[in-house]
Amino acid sequence: MSLVRVHNFSVSLDGFGTGEGQQLDAPFGHAGPRLMKWAFETRTFSQMGIRGESEGSLGVDEAFASQWAPGIGVEIMGRNKFGPQRGPWEDEEWKGWWGDNPVFHTPVVVLTHHPRPVLEMEGGTTFHFVDADPVSALKHARALAGDLDVRIGGGVSTIRQFLEADLIDHMHIVLVPIVLGRGERLWDGLEGLEQRFEIEVTPSPFGVLHLIFTRRTDG
Amino acid sequence: MSLVRVHNFSVSLDGFGTGEGQQLDAPFGHAGPRLMKWAFETRTFSQMGIRGESEGSLGVDEAFASQWAPGIGVEIMGRNKFGPQRGPWEDEEWKGWWGDNPVFHTPVVVLTHHPRPVLEMEGGTTFHFVDADPVSALKHARALAGDLDVRIGGGVSTIRQFLEADLIDHMHIVLVPIVLGRGERLWDGLEGLEQRFEIEVTPSPFGVLHLIFTRRTDG
Repeated sequence: MSLVRVHNFSVSLDGFGTGEGQQLDAPFGHAGPRLMKWAFETRTFSQMGIRGESEGSLGVDEAFASQWAPGIGVEIMGRNKFGPQRGPWEDEEWKGWWGDNPVFHTPVVVLTHHPRPVLEMEGGTTFHFVDADPVSALKHARALAGDLDVRIGGGVSTIRQFLEADLIDHMHIVLVPIVLGRGERLWDGLEGLEQRFEIEVTPSPFGVLHLIFTRRTDG
Repeated sequence: MSLVRVHNFSVSLDGFGTGEGQQLDAPFGHAGPRLMKWAFETRTFSQMGIRGESEGSLGVDEAFASQWAPGIGVEIMGRNKFGPQRGPWEDEEWKGWWGDNPVFHTPVVVLTHHPRPVLEMEGGTTFHFVDADPVSALKHARALAGDLDVRIGGGVSTIRQFLEADLIDHMHIVLVPIVLGRGERLWDGLEGLEQRFEIEVTPSPFGVLHLIFTRRTDG
């Protein structure tokens, strides 16, 4: 069976995966780019064109960042990672935050209570809008992924739902030592999570911490 | 001026410094000993007699744990670190969780709305019960400490109050990768704390993370 993986997902010291007040020009709300700064410095993100100022680093941050694409056949994301619209789609012409040629280059399942037709983008990304619980969404995603793995792309509530349903095999969380104060908490409702995972920790010279959660096989 | 320091204070991944339901036989509530396990393995804690099973380690956990006493002239603690009683003191014969010969061996200022006479214990520890805000309590403590430093001993709300009042110079927080789910959160109300501190991170082979906060002097 293919694996379900989370990559490059950052949280603050106080557990927030995003700030308050998401808007079109502020995908992370008041947190701004602070949670992802470590990633913008890596070669992987530089080559995605998300930040293009430098060639990008090849250190431990890059070693982790580069894991996100290889072996992945599909991403599942929450609607808020696609765009800031809420409720029924008012503007189907607007095709999300990810531009004409999104970075995914695979099918992407967007969880929403408001399905709409499949959106085919340049470069192999297709957005599939699905109203489903985590188990059904994963089944749908696996059918699109073939033998490859499934990435849970976020945001916070999407990852939390998949953790609650115990559907995640590998999870890469980046702890950023800032206190955001408000936003959406990743760990809420997950008391005892450590009993289901081995947790390995690696600090980076950039000042963040890479936490690798691997589902225990002995339980 | 002497420094104000925090040492060996553990929090969970979700930011709780103690669990829910503190009682006489459960100082950390439902968290039990999990937040302090790393410390029990060190030589410093072994020699305090808090856990006596082994000689204790001399690794990085010990290197940090051993910093808590040298140079300290007084500790300030919240009432809940002294004991689980609430409201007016009903039993002044009971002299706290710390036994006849407490580990502190210095004056200790206990913050409480219910002052009582100074309690002299064996080994040089004296408990001073003081009803004061952080600034006044610190003034009181400094008078007892002479030229030596002041340790803020916890619990959670005591450290938070001193951080809110910007009275802390050095802080050693140990991040334990468990999800407690409930209890008292350390980081609440401290949005932007990182702007006031340099933060250095060191992982230990035991699986915890030592975070050293040093007050910035450039701001």
